[in-house]
Amino acid sequence: MTGRVERAGVTWLEYAYGPDLVPDGPPDPSGMWRYRDLLPLDPGPVRYPLPVGGTPLLAAPALRAALGLPAVWLKDETRHPTGSNKDRATALVIEDGLRRGIGTVTTASTGNAAVATAFGAAAAGLRAVIFVSTGCRREKLALMTRAGARVFAVPDGYAAAVDLSRTAAAAFGWLDRNTGVVPATLEAKKTVAFEVWEQLGRELPDVVVAPVGDGPTLVALGKGFEELRRCGLTERVPRLVGVQAQSCSPLVRAWLGEPAATEQLDPGGTVADGIAVLRPATGPAVLDAVGRSGGGMVAVPDDVLRRAVGTLASRAGVPAEPAGAASLAAVGAALDGGLLDAAETVVLLVTGRGVAPTGDPGGPAEVPVAATLDDVERALAPR
Amino acid sequence: MTGRVERAGVTWLEYAYGPDLVPDGPPDPSGMWRYRDLLPLDPGPVRYPLPVGGTPLLAAPALRAALGLPAVWLKDETRHPTGSNKDRATALVIEDGLRRGIGTVTTASTGNAAVATAFGAAAAGLRAVIFVSTGCRREKLALMTRAGARVFAVPDGYAAAVDLSRTAAAAFGWLDRNTGVVPATLEAKKTVAFEVWEQLGRELPDVVVAPVGDGPTLVALGKGFEELRRCGLTERVPRLVGVQAQSCSPLVRAWLGEPAATEQLDPGGTVADGIAVLRPATGPAVLDAVGRSGGGMVAVPDDVLRRAVGTLASRAGVPAEPAGAASLAAVGAALDGGLLDAAETVVLLVTGRGVAPTGDPGGPAEVPVAATLDDVERALAPR
Ligand SMILES: Cc1ncc(COP(=O)(O)O)c(C=O)c1O
Ligand SMILES: Cc1ncc(COP(=O)(O)O)c(C=O)c1O
Repeated sequence: MTGRVERAGVTWLEYAYGPDLVPDGPPDPSGMWRYRDLLPLDPGPVRYPLPVGGTPLLAAPALRAALGLPAVWLKDETRHPTGSNKDRATALVIEDGLRRGIGTVTTASTGNAAVATAFGAAAAGLRAVIFVSTGCRREKLALMTRAGARVFAVPDGYAAAVDLSRTAAAAFGWLDRNTGVVPATLEAKKTVAFEVWEQLGRELPDVVVAPVGDGPTLVALGKGFEELRRCGLTERVPRLVGVQAQSCSPLVRAWLGEPAATEQLDPGGTVADGIAVLRPATGPAVLDAVGRSGGGMVAVPDDVLRRAVGTLASRAGVPAEPAGAASLAAVGAALDGGLLDAAETVVLLVTGRGVAPTGDPGGPAEVPVAATLDDVERALAPR
Repeated sequence: MTGRVERAGVTWLEYAYGPDLVPDGPPDPSGMWRYRDLLPLDPGPVRYPLPVGGTPLLAAPALRAALGLPAVWLKDETRHPTGSNKDRATALVIEDGLRRGIGTVTTASTGNAAVATAFGAAAAGLRAVIFVSTGCRREKLALMTRAGARVFAVPDGYAAAVDLSRTAAAAFGWLDRNTGVVPATLEAKKTVAFEVWEQLGRELPDVVVAPVGDGPTLVALGKGFEELRRCGLTERVPRLVGVQAQSCSPLVRAWLGEPAATEQLDPGGTVADGIAVLRPATGPAVLDAVGRSGGGMVAVPDDVLRRAVGTLASRAGVPAEPAGAASLAAVGAALDGGLLDAAETVVLLVTGRGVAPTGDPGGPAEVPVAATLDDVERALAPR
């Protein structure tokens, strides 16, 4: 790492770019750490104990036939330890904590990032302190507490949860894993771009489609592809298409330059809880990345999201949650809107499978409510 | 493959054993197919589209410290496409079908094998026809139907479901994926033994602990280790410890030579639905494999199973379902019973995470009931 710049509101770490920063050997089991020369990571062995990255890029022959898209690929992030791409960011943040001897990690989350943090912290022997909105899905809550995390429900919603988590991190010296605002989360998530490029035989796709909640998944994709270009390994970058649920589509409205109606700003109004974010942490950076790439933003209604979950299962054998299937859900609208052509090489990022093991052996989680740092300190105090 | 022998009631395929049958290069992304010289598979490209095998062997440092077992390892089969080791057997059976041009695959199942078959068939473009007992978990049913499988509930329970599935396979020329009775299921599942040996640096552990439902998982482990020995790659085999839920522990009772009480033969009496099998398809072969290896059988009560799910989450960051956590649940009893020593190298097979993505977008599945082949034929007939 050689420096940092601000770009559309996010901190962008920079490196001494060159073709040697990406290994050119055969694939290996090191997963995301394969790209450590492009990560903010000093030399030395990686101690994070869960394998992360190196997820499959699926050709999905039956899906190709069904969609009439002969060169569509699925980047299957459901194969991560807790079933979503959040495991990448979690791994890098916690690896940093292990090296610095920090014993607690905190995040706010709509769900998956919290589950990833809870399980990742458990594996690494750290304590996780997690802040969710009171609307967080019960089964995700149950998983976090089962993994031993201390979980707080924040009454004023997700944005307040982020504030409280960040305040606590600063006050208590905890690791901060809040998505987007912490550069390491972008750095880790960009590795998916490197993998796609390597898996296509060191070629870029024409288009990559990704769901957008807070935005780091898409912003990081854009950064990854741009870094390949700055390394001199590619000449262009793929067009990026970002997807939101129609009932919570602030960035699609901003992209289209339209005022958002009330029913387009309702995080509780969609099955795709993972991308239901009212004020995305990296909104301007999403619009910037999409714009620079020549792509666009698409909103998808819930019936199309549900159908996409079914199609991924029945045509590709991939178990996705609704937010994870949003890329596929957007294909029809993207074709209609001229954002992609049926003959192009298209990568659909399938971001998550959801996380609940079946046969839940525990009851529902009892989670304290916290509105202030005092509430947090009191609940964590030894009794 | 050079022949087949019968051993304790199962068909055991044989090969021209020698050290070259196991590759000695570095790990590669081909997963289970790495061991194709020890699989009943002719030359030619593998067409099965979901990557299977190559699951991590986790050192689990925090778990080691918590348990006081310095050399325990977790073989994490939850990282498979549908979250269980059933994906191995499914892949080999369907690959065979793709090569022979058979368009339908059938199985009966307590749940996970059916989900694996439904998703694997979907990915490969085959039709799946699945038979479950009427007690099958709703969320597993919903997944099967979402993947497009035709699912039948069989009123007389799991054994009747197996009969009907096998009868239908014979009558209609379908691929038969019924566990244990079809040699390919054992052949595929034995690859986990090869992986463990390679992942330990071409060394064997002292003990491997595995949950036992129908039994193929454990029987295949035994076959895999024995094949390494017959290849001249090892001198001994590890002791195998099989685990059942106390409330459905027919093979533990048989192993101990005790009569089973009614409350030990109740498949509905445990949270570990994956191993709740009253008449295990390969029971004698399980007892044979355990006996030859110098191991034993252990029954675990449900509270210990639930605790093991929690410990895997909170100490190792691994999301397991109760049947998948049974190996860990058995450690205490195995130590007490002298089946393993705390200083030994112990591999716990974590067989499954369960399969439900969160945020289920569909309602509960409507599944027809079938008792006879006629019921099946009528339901499948085009209307
Ligand atoms: C499954 C899934 N997909 C997509 C996203 C969106 O990711 P981001 O917040 O990086 O935009 C999330 C975020 O929680 C998610 O859980
Ligand atoms: C999670 C899990 N573990 C273990 C088993 C037992 O495997 P086997 O039937 O091969 O003994 C099953 C079988 O369904 C399972 O689903």
